[in-house]
Amino acid sequence: MKISCLKSELVQALQIAGRSVANKPQTPILSGIYMRAEKDMLEIQATDYEIGVVLHITAEIDAPGEVVVSGRYMQEVVRTLPEENVQLDYDKSTKILKISSGNSNFTLLSMNAEDFPKISRLQEGKTFKVRSVVLKELVRRTTFACATDETRPVFTGALLELEGDKVRMVATNSHRLALHEETIEEEQQEKCQYIIPKRVLEELQHIVGGEIPEEVTVSCTRSEMSFETERAYMTTRLIEGKYPDYRRAIPTDFATRVTLPTASFLSAVSRVGLIARSSEYNTIKLVFNMGEVHISSDNPIVGRAEETVKATIDGDDIDISFNASYLIDVLKVVNGDQFILMLNDSLKPAAVREPNNEDFVYIITPVRTKH
Amino acid sequence: MKISCLKSELVQALQIAGRSVANKPQTPILSGIYMRAEKDMLEIQATDYEIGVVLHITAEIDAPGEVVVSGRYMQEVVRTLPEENVQLDYDKSTKILKISSGNSNFTLLSMNAEDFPKISRLQEGKTFKVRSVVLKELVRRTTFACATDETRPVFTGALLELEGDKVRMVATNSHRLALHEETIEEEQQEKCQYIIPKRVLEELQHIVGGEIPEEVTVSCTRSEMSFETERAYMTTRLIEGKYPDYRRAIPTDFATRVTLPTASFLSAVSRVGLIARSSEYNTIKLVFNMGEVHISSDNPIVGRAEETVKATIDGDDIDISFNASYLIDVLKVVNGDQFILMLNDSLKPAAVREPNNEDFVYIITPVRTKH
Repeated sequence: MKISCLKSELVQALQIAGRSVANKPQTPILSGIYMRAEKDMLEIQATDYEIGVVLHITAEIDAPGEVVVSGRYMQEVVRTLPEENVQLDYDKSTKILKISSGNSNFTLLSMNAEDFPKISRLQEGKTFKVRSVVLKELVRRTTFACATDETRPVFTGALLELEGDKVRMVATNSHRLALHEETIEEEQQEKCQYIIPKRVLEELQHIVGGEIPEEVTVSCTRSEMSFETERAYMTTRLIEGKYPDYRRAIPTDFATRVTLPTASFLSAVSRVGLIARSSEYNTIKLVFNMGEVHISSDNPIVGRAEETVKATIDGDDIDISFNASYLIDVLKVVNGDQFILMLNDSLKPAAVREPNNEDFVYIITPVRTKH
Repeated sequence: MKISCLKSELVQALQIAGRSVANKPQTPILSGIYMRAEKDMLEIQATDYEIGVVLHITAEIDAPGEVVVSGRYMQEVVRTLPEENVQLDYDKSTKILKISSGNSNFTLLSMNAEDFPKISRLQEGKTFKVRSVVLKELVRRTTFACATDETRPVFTGALLELEGDKVRMVATNSHRLALHEETIEEEQQEKCQYIIPKRVLEELQHIVGGEIPEEVTVSCTRSEMSFETERAYMTTRLIEGKYPDYRRAIPTDFATRVTLPTASFLSAVSRVGLIARSSEYNTIKLVFNMGEVHISSDNPIVGRAEETVKATIDGDDIDISFNASYLIDVLKVVNGDQFILMLNDSLKPAAVREPNNEDFVYIITPVRTKH
């Protein structure tokens, strides 16, 4: 293999692939990055058996071939090269990859390319197309709500649901739930559900990253899913198990509807949350009354915090307590200057919605407090 | 105590003082920040018994007084306040400090101000004045060379030496040594030496920080030292023990004198050092020959790196190996486009100097290599 390519493109591809190189590889070969030169392309692959990533960059190929080298060193070396033009030259007999740029010459020892678990395309299963901006929005608005503990594995991922011309993403840790829905062009024959690991969805944000919207082809089998763009291909294992019926967690009627300014309510909750943070449930209290919400938090060791924010209250006055982080998380993904908080009583789940938008809902269970 | 002051000034003072609040306080009171309001000033104190810091900010005083509250919470709360105007109101009977700004109201529980080990001024000892820029340069150019391990406590600090109209700072870990000298206005009667903990010198960089140069008054006793500016006062314990005679570590004659471009040599050494990093001594080899230096590093597990940089060599050709970090560290503090490397043979200490500047010298011991 003998090629030349642009440093900036190689750095970017290695950076994305590098995140899928196993931190604690089960076998040494998984610490490697696989590179293959063919036609006008350099292909770069990395996998940790959960995620697999394939990226392509333009290259001038003098001799095709393949090589596996340490992902960590390849990344670090290429990042620091002095010139924008980079040459890679692999000598199969000595098993050495030469990396040159300007006056810099590196050699990296290679691993056996035959041992690398190459990523193969999903050949069967359902396929649909979705715009990258739509996919990113589905992920951004929900995945933060996934569970971080492993007691219920299905909750460590987000549900992707296809139904008719709708695509939905749902995430919950059983105390709060986020749902975002979008419309796709092709109508689906049958409803189907897939549970995607949270880490994979976060990685997806980098891969379908670019500022230019593009089309993503999603393919799904029972146990695997892939995402394909012009330059990148990512495959992932799905989480096994049945996702509970999330619709049952979404109340249909509410007694009180409060319209609040997003930015000032978020900063007030963040400040009051400072005092709550070292308490058991990170609890803040909201009292809705007389056209304002009074936000407070008491911590017997530290002190007390209080804020008042103007609110438009339709319905009964109410006192309710929440985990401050659960409110802060959703307020960071809400679109628009105002949002709506829908409440029943101090023990029943509340909902966060956006004005004139039925595509997003967030359900939050209150904290029971003494007194 | 009842005062109002500017959030930005209070935040900055709390941030500086916060770094001197003990992380693992020996007694609970050391987790606190002491505040005292008097005349038009709010005084803020923090100490961990090694460093003590006293800062002053302008305040409007309605009632004088003093209070101690958790340093961590005070910092976090003030930083997030919504308005630039901040009110502090301490009620001695309830022992509660009220912090208000705009619609935000916090209360923090206080600790007993009488228990706080208040920082007293050094009353005796030698005193000299130095400009803040000079002091910062002394620290910047040397302290990186201090030892990080504790086997020889005197090497965990830097030596401050006064002799005639000279002030010198010296730091070493016994494998490399940095010396920087400046001239002060007042001539000293007798030579004296103080060993200042590295951490204190790093902190000093923040305290004499501002962009406007100012005068710093340094006072020294046998065991303590203080630094005073218009707004800040810092006191520190000195390291006990005798600093070895650093002059004996500085060779007077060299066989070879090499002039090198600072920036390109630094980046070449950084790149080659990547491969050296996981080896035992982080070793890179320099070969000076025919108007250039060839920099290389070999790592039997990873690979090899090579670079060439043009050099002006006066004297004998030479091969020599160094710990890459020891070269990188000094090249980051060297002033000017070019620097001078002075060499004897591959086993003797080398020196880094600046052209036409006798005030700075860095000594570096080579790594012995096989072959």
